[in-house]
Parts: sequence; C-alpha cells; structure tokens
Amino acid sequence: MIILNTGDGKGKTTSAVGQIIRSLGHEFRVCLIQLFKGENFYGEQKILVKLDNLDFFPFAKEHPDCIKGVNLDKVVSQCRSAVKKLRDLADVPEKYDLIVLEEFNIALRDKFIDENEFIDIIKRLSQKSNVIVTGRGAPQSLIDIADLVTEMKEIKHPYKKGVQSQRGIEY
Amino acid sequence: MIILNTGDGKGKTTSAVGQIIRSLGHEFRVCLIQLFKGENFYGEQKILVKLDNLDFFPFAKEHPDCIKGVNLDKVVSQCRSAVKKLRDLADVPEKYDLIVLEEFNIALRDKFIDENEFIDIIKRLSQKSNVIVTGRGAPQSLIDIADLVTEMKEIKHPYKKGVQSQRGIEY
Repeated sequence: MIILNTGDGKGKTTSAVGQIIRSLGHEFRVCLIQLFKGENFYGEQKILVKLDNLDFFPFAKEHPDCIKGVNLDKVVSQCRSAVKKLRDLADVPEKYDLIVLEEFNIALRDKFIDENEFIDIIKRLSQKSNVIVTGRGAPQSLIDIADLVTEMKEIKHPYKKGVQSQRGIEY
Repeated sequence: MIILNTGDGKGKTTSAVGQIIRSLGHEFRVCLIQLFKGENFYGEQKILVKLDNLDFFPFAKEHPDCIKGVNLDKVVSQCRSAVKKLRDLADVPEKYDLIVLEEFNIALRDKFIDENEFIDIIKRLSQKSNVIVTGRGAPQSLIDIADLVTEMKEIKHPYKKGVQSQRGIEY
C-alpha cells in the first residue's frame, strides 16, 4: 500500500511517526528515510533511534530554503543518495513491513530527485512493503499511484497570529 | 496551547502519537487519556506503555457503534470518569507538558460527556499544559477555543474499494 500525507496543515510528519510506532508495536520491521531534518533537533529522533526493529537513514539534513549558505550541489547529491538507498531496498529480496519517506514531496517539488525514477521505485517497493511519503505539495503522479491520500488541511494556526514555533510541538 | 485533530481522514490519532513521541524526546512529561480504544489492539499502545515520562489512562475501551452488546450506561459512566480525571489534573498544581485526549470529540458528539463542562476544563488545563484533542466532528465550541486546528481530509481511501483494515496501518 502507498500512503501519502500531504497538505499545508500540521500532522504529516507526526502522523508518519505515529504510524511507525503503531507498526513497531506489532513487531514489524520499519525503515525511516528522512530528508531535510536537522539532527538532534526534532524530539522524535531521540526516541526513534532507541527503538528495536527500526532502521533510520537521514540524508540532506538541511534544506536551502531553511538554512542559509547551504551548498545546493551537496543537497542534490544527498537526495540522490537517498534515492539510491531506496533503489537498493527495492532490488534486494529482504523487505521492511513499512518504509517511511519523510519530506520526499519537497525533494520532488524542488527537482532534487527525478519524479519518474522515484515513482518507478515506489511502485516496486510497494509490492513488498507499505510505503508512506510525506511533505506538502505531493505531485499528481504520486497521488495517482497512492492507495490512501490524506490532506492535512490547516483550519487555524497560531503562527499566523505571530506565536513562535514551540519545542515539543513543532519540533 | 489547544490543538485539535479532526476531519474524516486518516492521521488524527497517529499524529497525536507522533506528537507524544516528539514531546518525550525533549523529556517532557506527557499524559494520554484514551477513549474507545480496545486494549492491546492498537500497536502504539504496546510501545507507549514502555516509555518513560508518559502516563497512560484508558477509559471506556469499547464504543457501542463498534462493539455489539456494550452496556451504554457503563460507557457513559467511564467517559464521566475520564472527565473527572481531567478535572483532577486541572485542579492540582502539578502539570504535564502535554495532555492528549484521544477520541474525546466522539464522546462529545454522542453526549457521553457535557460539552460546557469539558470546554471549561480544557480552558483551565491549557493554562499550564499543551492539550491535544482528537476525533472526527469536533464541536464548534472546541474549534473556537483551539489555537491550532487541522482537518485530516480524506482524498483517497482504499477501504472504499473494499480493501480490509490492515494491522500496523489502521490499528
């Protein structure tokens, strides 16, 4: 099954994290491939790395839109390494029960990774694993092949009223 | 801050679970009060009970719409015990950093708990704790006092095509 968490609202990443916890509770094997998330910043990273049956691969920890002075070539190269990792997972007979691809929609939007190549790999991976892809602005090609698509829709957000991002809530 | 995860789509509960993991990663104290969730059924329960700094209180484990032959009086009485627990949390000086109230929107919809009383308690609790309330069909009074409201909107769902609920994904 291919699951897509998209939209401009809160809950895309936290829902994927909850899904990881749910799967681990059934002793399933889980793989998390994360893009654009600074190390030791997000609270969930500190818990997830301690859990059994979860393999965690962070790539391209900084996105040029968020961190000034980031080398774009390095970001693109890191995103391509993430895709290579995915291709390797598709090629081997071993399987994870769940593979979570965090913020890959952003890498697709910014053309850091090739959409057609990504779609092909996801289709193959989903033959043996459940795959969750997160990030706002999912491309139509991914929506088309997904089985379950949820739009996290912002109804009310305090940061619009100038409230600052809060530890334990936003990160 | 009062946070509301509502809508007919997937991700209300899993996002709250992810939020719990995020908060625990910062060593925050978390309280989860859960309604209508059968024991040892949802994968996340098995992981959450093992984590430090989390207090977990399940009430009214069966909802009459889901489990046949459930005693309605007992369900209502259990939901009221959950509200009493909440009132107790509001009355003491000690505080949790995060309190998650799972499926309370359903208890409000079904009039198992009193809306005005609930709103009053939540307002008081949110003075000292972040509070997350989940469940479809949040009442307008709760949307009005919430700081952050996300609608999990179903764009595509495989169960409409007759696919069965899947272990590790739906529970």
